[in-house]
Amino acid sequence: MSELRGACIIGQSGGPTSVINASAQGAIQAALKADCITRVLGAAHGIKGVLEDKLYDMGQESPEELELLQNTPSSALGSCRYKLADPDQDDTDYQRILEIFQKYDVRYFFYNGGNDSMDTCNKISKYMQKVGYECRIMGIPKTIDNDLNGTDHCPGFASAAKYIATSCMEVWHDAHVYDTGMVTVIEIMGRHAGWLAGSAALATWAGFGPDLVYLPEVDFDMEKFIADVQAIYDKTGKCMVAVSEGIHYADGSFVSEAKTSATDGFGHAQLGGLATMLAEVIKQKTGAKVRGIELSLLQRCGAHLASHTDIEEAKMAGRVAVEAAVAGNTDKMVAFQCTRDGGKYECKTVLEPLDIVANFEKKVPREWINAEGNGVEQAFIDYVLPLIQGEPERPKEHALPRFAKLNKVLTTDL
Amino acid sequence: MSELRGACIIGQSGGPTSVINASAQGAIQAALKADCITRVLGAAHGIKGVLEDKLYDMGQESPEELELLQNTPSSALGSCRYKLADPDQDDTDYQRILEIFQKYDVRYFFYNGGNDSMDTCNKISKYMQKVGYECRIMGIPKTIDNDLNGTDHCPGFASAAKYIATSCMEVWHDAHVYDTGMVTVIEIMGRHAGWLAGSAALATWAGFGPDLVYLPEVDFDMEKFIADVQAIYDKTGKCMVAVSEGIHYADGSFVSEAKTSATDGFGHAQLGGLATMLAEVIKQKTGAKVRGIELSLLQRCGAHLASHTDIEEAKMAGRVAVEAAVAGNTDKMVAFQCTRDGGKYECKTVLEPLDIVANFEKKVPREWINAEGNGVEQAFIDYVLPLIQGEPERPKEHALPRFAKLNKVLTTDL
Repeated sequence: MSELRGACIIGQSGGPTSVINASAQGAIQAALKADCITRVLGAAHGIKGVLEDKLYDMGQESPEELELLQNTPSSALGSCRYKLADPDQDDTDYQRILEIFQKYDVRYFFYNGGNDSMDTCNKISKYMQKVGYECRIMGIPKTIDNDLNGTDHCPGFASAAKYIATSCMEVWHDAHVYDTGMVTVIEIMGRHAGWLAGSAALATWAGFGPDLVYLPEVDFDMEKFIADVQAIYDKTGKCMVAVSEGIHYADGSFVSEAKTSATDGFGHAQLGGLATMLAEVIKQKTGAKVRGIELSLLQRCGAHLASHTDIEEAKMAGRVAVEAAVAGNTDKMVAFQCTRDGGKYECKTVLEPLDIVANFEKKVPREWINAEGNGVEQAFIDYVLPLIQGEPERPKEHALPRFAKLNKVLTTDL
Repeated sequence: MSELRGACIIGQSGGPTSVINASAQGAIQAALKADCITRVLGAAHGIKGVLEDKLYDMGQESPEELELLQNTPSSALGSCRYKLADPDQDDTDYQRILEIFQKYDVRYFFYNGGNDSMDTCNKISKYMQKVGYECRIMGIPKTIDNDLNGTDHCPGFASAAKYIATSCMEVWHDAHVYDTGMVTVIEIMGRHAGWLAGSAALATWAGFGPDLVYLPEVDFDMEKFIADVQAIYDKTGKCMVAVSEGIHYADGSFVSEAKTSATDGFGHAQLGGLATMLAEVIKQKTGAKVRGIELSLLQRCGAHLASHTDIEEAKMAGRVAVEAAVAGNTDKMVAFQCTRDGGKYECKTVLEPLDIVANFEKKVPREWINAEGNGVEQAFIDYVLPLIQGEPERPKEHALPRFAKLNKVLTTDL
C-alpha cells in the first residue's frame, strides 16, 4: 500500500462517555506523530463541524492538556446527533463533505461513536469511493450502551458499569439504614440492550446490591414485577430494584412511555421518570416507603469512577485506528477481541468491516439472564468484571478534578 | 473527677452520611481501649435499639472490619428518626432507657446525629440527672446539611459537598456537548440550609459548574428565576442551574410542593421532583431542551468521593467524645473550631453544651450569598474548600469498594 499524505479529521459523535476523550487523545497523539499526516483537525460537534467548516487545529494544543483528555469526561470537541441522508436520495451533505476534504486535503477521517456514527462512516466512505476521492475512513467504537456488533465490548461501557455498580453498593447501604420498610428503584440507561442495567448486579455479587434487575431483553410484565418485589419485601422489609430505562411490555411499548414527550435528534423516544413511576406503583400496592433514583447523565460522565482498563483500551482504540489507516486500511472499525480463560483477561484489537458493525444492536444473550428474567447469571458477571478493573491516576487541583482545557483554535481563525 | 466504670452505648441517628461510620469507628476504637469502659455496645437503629434491647457487642467485631468502617457509607449500626417525648408529659421511654442502662451498667452514652439527635441526648441527660443515675452523655455531630449550631462545620457535610461539586463538574461537560440549546437543573439536598446547594458553586469556581445557584436562605421568585435562566440561555445557548430542594416562596411554601399539580404536555400528572418541575417550566418558557437531575441519596452515600479531611475529622469527633467523657465531661457535643488564616486550615475540637446546640438550624450567612440571590460569594468558597481536601485510601476488592462487614452480635444472643 502506497503512502497517503494529507490531513486528518477526528470527530466525536453521539452520547458522550467518560472515556470518549481518551480515544480522541489516542487518535490525536498518534496522528500528530504520523509523518504522512500533515495536519490534525478536530471536528467541532462531529460531522456538523465538517459540514460547517468548523475545524480545530489540534497542533495548537499543548501536549499537557491533550494528556489530560484521558481523564476528562464527555466529548471535548463537541458531539452531535446528526443523521446523514441516504446519498442516493440526497447527496448535498456528501458534496459538502467532499468540498471540505478537498479544501484541507483531508485523506484520513476518524469517527468515534456508536451505531449511528458507524453508519455515518460507512456512508461517507462509500460516497468517497464512488466519486473517486482517495480517503481512508476508520470508525472508533464508543457507547456506554455496549451494543455495537463485532466487538467484545465498547469503550465507555466499563466505566459506566463501574459507576453503576459502585453507586448501587452505596445506595444499598443508605436504603437499609432504617428498620422501617423501604423499596428503592434505580433507573439505568440502555434503551435496547441491558448491559448497563445488568451491571448493577456486580454490586449484588460484591455483597450489597439490587435484589432484582430487569433488562430490556426480557419482556416486562407489571404483575410479575409487583409479585417479585412483594415477595422480597414481605420477607426482608426491604427491596432494591434496578431497571433499564428501556424495559417494555410484550407488545414492544416502553413501560416509561407515559412520560415520553420528546425525541432526540435520531428520532428515538426520550425516556426518563421510570424509576419514580415504578416506585409509585409499588407504593400503591404494598404501602411501602419508596424511592426512585435515576442515575441520569451522572452514569455516563462519572469520570472519577472510570475504569483504568477502559481508559487504556479507549486510548488504544484511537491509536490503532490511526496506525491502521496509515498502514493502508480503510472502511473498518477498530474492535476488541478478548479472552477471559481461567480468569486471565486479555484484549487485542482487530479491524471489522464497517458494514457489519453499523445498524445492528448487540443484546445481552438470553442465557446470561436468569430464567425468571429478574437478574443475571454468573456468565454476565464474568464478562463484565475484567473490564472495570484498575484505578486510573486522577489529576486534581484543590481536591477537584483537573479536566483538560483545550484552546480549540478554528482553522478559519488562523 | 473520679473514674466512672461501666459499659458504653454508641448510637447512630438521623439521615446517614458518607462518614458517620468513621465517627462510630473513632468512638468504638477509643472505647475499646479505655480501661474504665467495661463493655462497648452498639445500639441497633439508634435510640430504638436501646428501647428494644437490641444492642450489639462491639467486642465481637474483628479489628480489621472496624477499620473499614471509615470508608463505609451510611450507618453500619442502623439509624432511626425517633423523637423522644417531652419527659414532663410522658416519661415511658426514659424509664425504659434507664432500665436498659441499669441492666448493662451503662455509664457512657454516645449519640451521633444532627439537631434532633442532640435534642435526644439532651433530654436523656436531663432525665438521668433528675433520677440520680450517674451517666456521661456526649453528642457527636453529623449531618450533610451542615446546619448544627456551635460548630464550624459538621462531619458528613464536606464529603457530600465534594460529591456535589465533582458531579456538577462532570455533568457540566455532558450538558455542553451538543451545539443545540440545553438547560440543566440539578436538585440538591438541604431543606432549610443552603450549605450543600452552595457547594455546587465549587464546580463553577473550578471552571465548570452551574451558572446559577439557588439557596433556601433567599426567598425564591419564579419570575426572577425564569429571567435569570433566560438571560444566560439567550447569551450562551446553555444554562446550568443548581437548586436546593428547600427553596421556597416568600410566603414560606416550598416550590416543590406545587409539583403534584403540574402536568406534562400530554396532561399526565408529572412524576419526579423539583428539578424536573423547574426544567419543565423553563422548557415551556424558552423552548429549550431541558434535563432535571436529582442527586438524591447518591450525594449522601457517595463514600467513593469522600474527603480525607472529613473522614479524619469524623473519626476525631468520635474519639474525642469518648476521651472527654472518660475524663469526666458530660452533656456536651464535640464541636469544631477552625481557622483558615491566609489559606492555612486548622481544626481543633471543643466541647459545646448540648442545649446550645440542639434545635437551632445554622444557615448560610446572607452576605455569603450574592446580592441577586442566585450564587455565592468567595467567602463561601473559602469556607468550604479546605473541608473537601485530601483523598482517602479506598480499600477495594475486584475494583469495587470493600465495605465493612460487621458480625452484629446481639447481647441477647450471647
